[in-house]
Amino acid sequence: MTTLLIKGGTVVGPSGTFAADVLVDGERIAALMLPGTAPETGGRVFDAAGKYVIPGGVDAHTHMELPFGGTAASDTFATGTAAAAWGGTTTIIDFAVQRTGESVQDGLAAWHAKAEGECHVDYAFHQILGGVDEASLKAMDSLVADEGITSFKLFMAYPGVFYSDDGQILRAMQKARENGAMIMMHAENGPAIDVLVAQALARGETDPIHHGLTRPAALETEATSRAIYLAEVARDTPLYIVHLSASGALEKVAEARDAGRNVFAETCPQYLYLTLEDQLGAPGFEGAKWVCSTPLRSKHEPHARDLWQGLRTNDLAVVSTDHCPFCFKDQKELGLGDFSRIPNGIGSVEHRVDLLYQGVVDGKLSLERWVETIATTPARMFGLYPRKGVIAPGSDADIVVYDPDGRTRISAETHHMNMDHSAWEGFEIAGKVDTVISRGTVLLENGTFHGRRGHGRYVRRGLSQYLV
Amino acid sequence: MTTLLIKGGTVVGPSGTFAADVLVDGERIAALMLPGTAPETGGRVFDAAGKYVIPGGVDAHTHMELPFGGTAASDTFATGTAAAAWGGTTTIIDFAVQRTGESVQDGLAAWHAKAEGECHVDYAFHQILGGVDEASLKAMDSLVADEGITSFKLFMAYPGVFYSDDGQILRAMQKARENGAMIMMHAENGPAIDVLVAQALARGETDPIHHGLTRPAALETEATSRAIYLAEVARDTPLYIVHLSASGALEKVAEARDAGRNVFAETCPQYLYLTLEDQLGAPGFEGAKWVCSTPLRSKHEPHARDLWQGLRTNDLAVVSTDHCPFCFKDQKELGLGDFSRIPNGIGSVEHRVDLLYQGVVDGKLSLERWVETIATTPARMFGLYPRKGVIAPGSDADIVVYDPDGRTRISAETHHMNMDHSAWEGFEIAGKVDTVISRGTVLLENGTFHGRRGHGRYVRRGLSQYLV
Amino acid sequence: MTTLLIKGGTVVGPSGTFAADVLVDGERIAALMLPGTAPETGGRVFDAAGKYVIPGGVDAHTHMELPFGGTAASDTFATGTAAAAWGGTTTIIDFAVQRTGESVQDGLAAWHAKAEGECHVDYAFHQILGGVDEASLKAMDSLVADEGITSFKLFMAYPGVFYSDDGQILRAMQKARENGAMIMMHAENGPAIDVLVAQALARGETDPIHHGLTRPAALETEATSRAIYLAEVARDTPLYIVHLSASGALEKVAEARDAGRNVFAETCPQYLYLTLEDQLGAPGFEGAKWVCSTPLRSKHEPHARDLWQGLRTNDLAVVSTDHCPFCFKDQKELGLGDFSRIPNGIGSVEHRVDLLYQGVVDGKLSLERWVETIATTPARMFGLYPRKGVIAPGSDADIVVYDPDGRTRISAETHHMNMDHSAWEGFEIAGKVDTVISRGTVLLENGTFHGRRGHGRYVRRGLSQYLV
Amino acid sequence: MTTLLIKGGTVVGPSGTFAADVLVDGERIAALMLPGTAPETGGRVFDAAGKYVIPGGVDAHTHMELPFGGTAASDTFATGTAAAAWGGTTTIIDFAVQRTGESVQDGLAAWHAKAEGECHVDYAFHQILGGVDEASLKAMDSLVADEGITSFKLFMAYPGVFYSDDGQILRAMQKARENGAMIMMHAENGPAIDVLVAQALARGETDPIHHGLTRPAALETEATSRAIYLAEVARDTPLYIVHLSASGALEKVAEARDAGRNVFAETCPQYLYLTLEDQLGAPGFEGAKWVCSTPLRSKHEPHARDLWQGLRTNDLAVVSTDHCPFCFKDQKELGLGDFSRIPNGIGSVEHRVDLLYQGVVDGKLSLERWVETIATTPARMFGLYPRKGVIAPGSDADIVVYDPDGRTRISAETHHMNMDHSAWEGFEIAGKVDTVISRGTVLLENGTFHGRRGHGRYVRRGLSQYLV
Repeated sequence: MTTLLIKGGTVVGPSGTFAADVLVDGERIAALMLPGTAPETGGRVFDAAGKYVIPGGVDAHTHMELPFGGTAASDTFATGTAAAAWGGTTTIIDFAVQRTGESVQDGLAAWHAKAEGECHVDYAFHQILGGVDEASLKAMDSLVADEGITSFKLFMAYPGVFYSDDGQILRAMQKARENGAMIMMHAENGPAIDVLVAQALARGETDPIHHGLTRPAALETEATSRAIYLAEVARDTPLYIVHLSASGALEKVAEARDAGRNVFAETCPQYLYLTLEDQLGAPGFEGAKWVCSTPLRSKHEPHARDLWQGLRTNDLAVVSTDHCPFCFKDQKELGLGDFSRIPNGIGSVEHRVDLLYQGVVDGKLSLERWVETIATTPARMFGLYPRKGVIAPGSDADIVVYDPDGRTRISAETHHMNMDHSAWEGFEIAGKVDTVISRGTVLLENGTFHGRRGHGRYVRRGLSQYLV
Repeated sequence: MTTLLIKGGTVVGPSGTFAADVLVDGERIAALMLPGTAPETGGRVFDAAGKYVIPGGVDAHTHMELPFGGTAASDTFATGTAAAAWGGTTTIIDFAVQRTGESVQDGLAAWHAKAEGECHVDYAFHQILGGVDEASLKAMDSLVADEGITSFKLFMAYPGVFYSDDGQILRAMQKARENGAMIMMHAENGPAIDVLVAQALARGETDPIHHGLTRPAALETEATSRAIYLAEVARDTPLYIVHLSASGALEKVAEARDAGRNVFAETCPQYLYLTLEDQLGAPGFEGAKWVCSTPLRSKHEPHARDLWQGLRTNDLAVVSTDHCPFCFKDQKELGLGDFSRIPNGIGSVEHRVDLLYQGVVDGKLSLERWVETIATTPARMFGLYPRKGVIAPGSDADIVVYDPDGRTRISAETHHMNMDHSAWEGFEIAGKVDTVISRGTVLLENGTFHGRRGHGRYVRRGLSQYLV
Repeated sequence: MTTLLIKGGTVVGPSGTFAADVLVDGERIAALMLPGTAPETGGRVFDAAGKYVIPGGVDAHTHMELPFGGTAASDTFATGTAAAAWGGTTTIIDFAVQRTGESVQDGLAAWHAKAEGECHVDYAFHQILGGVDEASLKAMDSLVADEGITSFKLFMAYPGVFYSDDGQILRAMQKARENGAMIMMHAENGPAIDVLVAQALARGETDPIHHGLTRPAALETEATSRAIYLAEVARDTPLYIVHLSASGALEKVAEARDAGRNVFAETCPQYLYLTLEDQLGAPGFEGAKWVCSTPLRSKHEPHARDLWQGLRTNDLAVVSTDHCPFCFKDQKELGLGDFSRIPNGIGSVEHRVDLLYQGVVDGKLSLERWVETIATTPARMFGLYPRKGVIAPGSDADIVVYDPDGRTRISAETHHMNMDHSAWEGFEIAGKVDTVISRGTVLLENGTFHGRRGHGRYVRRGLSQYLV
Repeated sequence: MTTLLIKGGTVVGPSGTFAADVLVDGERIAALMLPGTAPETGGRVFDAAGKYVIPGGVDAHTHMELPFGGTAASDTFATGTAAAAWGGTTTIIDFAVQRTGESVQDGLAAWHAKAEGECHVDYAFHQILGGVDEASLKAMDSLVADEGITSFKLFMAYPGVFYSDDGQILRAMQKARENGAMIMMHAENGPAIDVLVAQALARGETDPIHHGLTRPAALETEATSRAIYLAEVARDTPLYIVHLSASGALEKVAEARDAGRNVFAETCPQYLYLTLEDQLGAPGFEGAKWVCSTPLRSKHEPHARDLWQGLRTNDLAVVSTDHCPFCFKDQKELGLGDFSRIPNGIGSVEHRVDLLYQGVVDGKLSLERWVETIATTPARMFGLYPRKGVIAPGSDADIVVYDPDGRTRISAETHHMNMDHSAWEGFEIAGKVDTVISRGTVLLENGTFHGRRGHGRYVRRGLSQYLV
């Protein structure tokens, strides 16, 4: 007996659209059928006529409750995953953190402790390596084999905090080459940036915009290029660049991809819509809302245009949020008078599906690429396919009905993230998340939220299914 | 009532595989269902356990009965489409030809006359423009609007036969920009090639290998580059390069694609497996079997390696055959003593699905890209989607069950094309076309062919669905 | 006995500057000596203190008395070479023209007849091939062997006039590969341009600016690229692109040069300073003054910036003028109401040395590159070195004393070219040609011209001395 | 009164050759004169008929007496400069070393102490910064202003020894941007190399060839790329890559140069002639003779071919030796059983002029580029022009007469470097250093050496004269 029937909608898959009714049986999709041919089973029926039926969004980059600069990201797994669900994202992959001096396993355990029983949608973990040494290299093997964690993030920025030097990076990449894991890279040249930051502060340049000015695009491009060379030396281990924001970095990724290499990148909505001048450079301390790393880029350079193009050409494979929310009051304000103390992060987990759909409306992205970049490819990239990321028999019934005739206005007053402001205040989207289903359970319907803490389960991931 | 059930197989789609039963009702796919959940309907049941279920192949480049150099391609629409069906291809797009001095419409009518009632599988047409003038430009509009023909092929080679000069090409491209059609291009610099051919013959170099030596890769690269510039001048009209064979040409396509332009290319199996030295340079006149244009390339250069990579990176979107068979006896032999008189063409319509599957076995191509390049993308590229190219409810029930444990040996003794030799004699494929279904009709099953002339219908195509 | 002594100046050579006295004996330079050490010989002494002593300019691209569009360039060899001398140019290389239907030798003879006994400075010839056939290919050999003409110009533009198709170009290149000559190329895609021109006129777009708009940069880039491929097919025959104006074309030249190939290019002062919008787009018919091909480029694109850079990097080796003057009255006016009938050409032979020196003042060019691009490299490129282009013992005493403290204002009222207007009206140069000496004869001194018709001699050239 | 006359020779300059007699008066060149026109002055006369007269070589990269790995380079300033003179090099620029913990000034003073009164030819210094901090940054200013040292070398390799991190590099570059100095870079990714070295040793791979295998070309390319980015961030400060050996690194330099940036590179003779397999991979411990960093590259890759091409295209501006000789006995042998303990260095200061002339004979380099790369450009690059690097009135009379009909056989038995072996044993050069003159003093003549310790003087250098 099917328990849910979504009828009359247009299913959007990565190769195009077709009309089909979608039957859900329990937690899984049971069938896709010619419209009107589904048997009556007494289950609930959703009318999706005139609407898109898409796989639930997969946000491959979130930081719930991340400790940073003496405070912590303001969304808990509970609040953050509720907001995700509101926005059509039914899976998040958060970053478990190994702090310096801590074992990888302890770091992971702490993350499980934060998330377990709290989430409204399914969740998985990447692991941040706070230090590369014999123990953490060994831990990589066991996380891949036993924990369903198949991707590890390293930092070329933040010396003294998360930073790994090139020798450490090489060793982690070699290990990943052996065990099949993906290396994820925060690609900015930290040591050089720290010089520029210290010089700016010494000159009295303390406003938020100097966060961006001291992290020039050339230093993201450089680090991206370097990571790609190191991956080559590690016998072409797969590499995934996070939060790519600069045209030059994109060029490096594109070059590697043209050469047939397993080099991938994500960008985030903020780099597609927001700029150094208009947001980060807002008067006074206002710009602190948009302090994130990599930083917003200058509107006088073609970064945003190139990123949209990269999404079309698949040189950018994924759109994640890098969701890392901080309240303005008491949190962002830690950096009053010193931009380097502003907690880095923007909160977008609720808006990614909408913000990218706006790209479809604006003619910047096809419907197919919308679905690929927000759901299908992140699922394949990180070993969740076909359980997540696709509308197919046997897949988890993570389904979003999206209404192209709806309208969404973003505001801190109405959003569900635990933030006292919105980086997207006033943005209007010509579309709307209509219905959200997670493993067969309706979370959102007719503007009413039915989600509950604990519905979301930890998902063990396999190896990447996106390698060439 | 469903009429066919394909159960227990692994469906391969462009984003991955999943287990599903496929139900067919009449000519269309009715449903994809969780394995084992399909209702009993009394229709035929095919056991696809351990096999791949893929959309029927779409060969976007065939030349049945093409007049060339005083003879004609040896496959009729009847024999050629039977061979296609044997090989898992359930749709061909053949090239209607406007001869010089003839109207486009008359050329098209002649092609319909040849094909109608003869085909074993569905067929569509591209239109070759034998001359660009006011009348043919006007005809382009009417073919797009009324005839379901939305792609037009031009030649930068063959001066005095099919050749269009750059002004004519530009005009046709401008027209395509208006009416949404795709321009397909044979990209070789014909005037320069003709100089090299005449010089070679004057030096007494008459063997088949000189066909290749007088068509250097640089002249394909040049023409490809030029076509891309002309498409830019025509306000970025979409462009599709046919039978791309040279690394340099691929680079030009990749550059344009990196820049986000609607530039596409196909390659053909012969460029992936066969070489100037080993085949075209076979002793005596034997090499004539492999005379085709663009020619086979040197094994001392990385063309084949780069083409496989291009298939992986999607810089090559499609694999077609450029099927243009000539018998050795009486046909290829027309060029004894003068390579320039050897009819140009290789017959592969029967082997494309197999030959590319071998790439999967060899680790050169993923399963997903196999299906994309032989079926899904050609369908999208040429406006046949989702009717063709995908396993989805509502699509034509063009389905191939492919057996990865089977084995196929290619030989002229066993093939079904109307040729007295095979360009692929002795090739062994680690896979086998098991069952072929066209619009719900079983054409091939257990090694027995049930197809019949006239089953195949003309398909009107829409505009390309693959534009960025 | 030396007859002239230029003392106290700063000699500028391609690798830098040094202080030296220059002694001239008869027509040749006798010695370079430590300042103050020259023996007293009773000859004339020029005080060059505070001034630059440079080799006389070599203008490798002029068109004196060129028939074009029913009229002829307004400078005779007499007036044009006088103007050249005024401007510090002591050698011109003009283009002898073979008209269609005429023999190459007759074309050359006609050019000798025009020039002989008329010139104020030395002159040499390139040969334009109006058609490539057996006779003209044979003539290439004899011009190289017997006439001191070692460079041949072909046109990818002007179908029906100078145009050669790619087969003809290839044949001429092959011939040049044999006899060592340089192929010079007017690289614009004429057949495509002619379509755009006809369409513009059909739309009633008749003003001069449409001359530029119908010759887009992409069609110069394309043709440049194609010429480079054809030169590759002709076994890497040397190639020299004339009047390069577009960034894209420059990139193609730079790519070939990075690959170590003998591909060279010149630009002209008009592309460095003047633009489509500001000059060619001048109100009414005024823009006709700046109709030349390749056309002036848009100021909204970085062409001029890139060309200056190309001069610095030596991707542009030479600055010539493409001097082809037409009066506004009666000549440019032939194109009133139809831009395609405006004679193509700008007159600059008098101003090249000054205009490029302004680049030195503006920090865009080093002193060394100034001398290289206007004198040394053209002399080497076209087989005149060390007779021309260098201040060295044994070289022709073609010497310019250039005053960096002088000032030059350009105006039709004061120039010496036979034109009723100046493309450079009102330009001010922060430098001045002070003294001009040709083969030991003082042509210009203290603002007084001492030149005479017939002083200039025909110079037979050797093969290029600039090949890598 | 002139003291020397070199008559009848062919002077080779960067733009070509000309016949001239060269007069020397005391330490300087007094005049270049038409052959046969020099006055009789009673000085010595050298007959250079049939020979080339070139500026004395400038070797911009030597390491006399460099302490390294518990030993020191085996040539003293006395022996090394004598060998240089024998080989036609009349100026060396050695690297003064600041050791860690030592002040820059003390390091420099130590170097002066070693060199003063010892040298046979003129010498200048670059300064190696062993650490970038406030003191060393301040020292940079004073060395530029007061000491005639205008170039500073940093290392991206050798962590714990000479290594600077990216922040330190950036700071030094910023300082150079202010004071006009050139930053020279050893571009290899040291931290990554150290991982590979440790892994190789752990695997028991101890032979000399593993020195090369653990320093892959990708890690030179990466570091070169990174240095170029850092120079960009330092507002385009000039950058000079030392001992470039890899094709990929050359591409990075070429890209920067195409973009008009002040990025330069040198290569060394060993990378042009010797390979990983044939020399470094010699049986047993023999390969230790060729352990140098960057290492010799694989002959299966096109490095050497590309480097020769780079010399032709000027993407490689300079050929230096990186002369750093160690005896096999007791020195190279320190690394028996552990390649990482083999002192790094090859001795070539005596052979550079010859080895590059062989390139002229082999058709790989023009005469002009020979002189530019070994003399003129290093002089201009490092602020020695026109005192050094050119045959011009007023220049130091550093002159080499080179005999193209001579022959040179290289052997440890006959060389003059203080080494017990030669990296070039058995090499034969089709040319010979005939006569060597330094500041008017004849050092070598008819195979007899007349040089003496102390003749060579320290030369203060100005800022680079090679910037674009």
